[in-house]
Amino acid sequence: MKEKLTIVKVGGAVVEDEAQLTQLLKDFAAIKGAKVLVHGGGRRATKTAERLGIETKMVEGRRITDTAMLEVVTMVYGGLVNKTVVARLQALGINAIGLTGADAGIIRSVKRPPVVMQEALVDFGFVGDVKRVDGEKIAQLIDAGLTPVIAPLTHDGEGHILNTNADTMASETAKALAQLYDVTLVFAFEKPGVLRDPDDDTSVITTITHEDFERYRNDGTISGGMVPKVTNALAAVDAGVSRVVITSANAIDGEHGTIIKKLTKPLHV
Amino acid sequence: MKEKLTIVKVGGAVVEDEAQLTQLLKDFAAIKGAKVLVHGGGRRATKTAERLGIETKMVEGRRITDTAMLEVVTMVYGGLVNKTVVARLQALGINAIGLTGADAGIIRSVKRPPVVMQEALVDFGFVGDVKRVDGEKIAQLIDAGLTPVIAPLTHDGEGHILNTNADTMASETAKALAQLYDVTLVFAFEKPGVLRDPDDDTSVITTITHEDFERYRNDGTISGGMVPKVTNALAAVDAGVSRVVITSANAIDGEHGTIIKKLTKPLHV
Repeated sequence: MKEKLTIVKVGGAVVEDEAQLTQLLKDFAAIKGAKVLVHGGGRRATKTAERLGIETKMVEGRRITDTAMLEVVTMVYGGLVNKTVVARLQALGINAIGLTGADAGIIRSVKRPPVVMQEALVDFGFVGDVKRVDGEKIAQLIDAGLTPVIAPLTHDGEGHILNTNADTMASETAKALAQLYDVTLVFAFEKPGVLRDPDDDTSVITTITHEDFERYRNDGTISGGMVPKVTNALAAVDAGVSRVVITSANAIDGEHGTIIKKLTKPLHV
Repeated sequence: MKEKLTIVKVGGAVVEDEAQLTQLLKDFAAIKGAKVLVHGGGRRATKTAERLGIETKMVEGRRITDTAMLEVVTMVYGGLVNKTVVARLQALGINAIGLTGADAGIIRSVKRPPVVMQEALVDFGFVGDVKRVDGEKIAQLIDAGLTPVIAPLTHDGEGHILNTNADTMASETAKALAQLYDVTLVFAFEKPGVLRDPDDDTSVITTITHEDFERYRNDGTISGGMVPKVTNALAAVDAGVSRVVITSANAIDGEHGTIIKKLTKPLHV
């Protein structure tokens, strides 16, 4: 049987709020077994850019990363947020090690070419699409007793840092590590899970399989931005991740929220 | 016989100049055997602080690090400079891993208490004095095929990042690793070495032992800021570092500049 490994992804809103961060790191430290934390930091980057007089441009919620913005995200994600989290985890007895995709060459990406969006060509700039995760190298660090804390930055292998989506980095890392561990991937966000009724936080759907998802999409229960989230989660379980959990940042133990599973029941053989 | 290990310390002036950085990283990549790079970044921090409207206060050449300045150095040293160097080394085929003292808990420090200077009490703020280097952990990373790139930040074990002198981090790291490796410590700076005549760059003193140092101090050849530099270098060799080299940033192969050795000749037994 493979060793258990939990990967928790937390967004910028959580890591930038002192009370939420304190609670999250305490909960993360309490997770038993091997673990990895993947963090965002977008709001802090936007604030720092503003203080530096650099305008933040977004297209459909995604940041345009020009040279000046690349410096900002490298500073904020790789420096400020990452090192703050690492030092705090160290104080909680977790031997954390901060990493970007460039460090130990763990995650390589390719610069996203300009894409057609809304009938216009959009160049996202120094943004990387994940190409390869070196699961063996991450496992080597974990086996050395370390807990990787991953910032949403990768490298292209040609000397350039690239701004990279933290959700994607978390699921690609989970897929790579699924070859070596029994992986649970936890996406922590502001809602308690996938909701039957978006206005009712108590209406959490506890389990979603492929079949459930099909049914929920057909009857309209799951719609909008939740569709790609669950689609990605199912893709991760298809790629060998034992389970994916979509949950609130204050319930990251893997037992709360919505659990995305490959199958409800074992196949009839 | 112990494996050879070279630790190169480069100051901010070099890492912030594109041409010098390119050459330095190429030279560093060419060093045979295990290696570690320790970098500064002070000028860049000062520039970024200025852009953020944060005043840089120095006392006798040392930075006062208040909360705002701590954020700046964490961003600049731990993020911008460190990740830029790591990505560039990756492109040169070196499997670099960026580290602060907090990462993997490699270097712990204690916050410097206010000190009396020029008859006044000076509080340097969030500045750390190195307390303990975990040489075993650094060796574990090196043995995993990684090349540590260390930023001048440490942690106090209680959740705080502390701004730390890069020269001190380099020599303390060298001392700790001297238990495990045959260590050469290279201090790269703007001069080609310790000079007999400060105005003549060709007057490099090729070797300095304890006896030489005593003689040079007495006759005035070594004076001013060079005294603590050589004193520290000799302290490192006394602590087991095989040799310390003070050299120009464009001659870091350990064969140029001034070599600080414990003894000129073997002892007569």
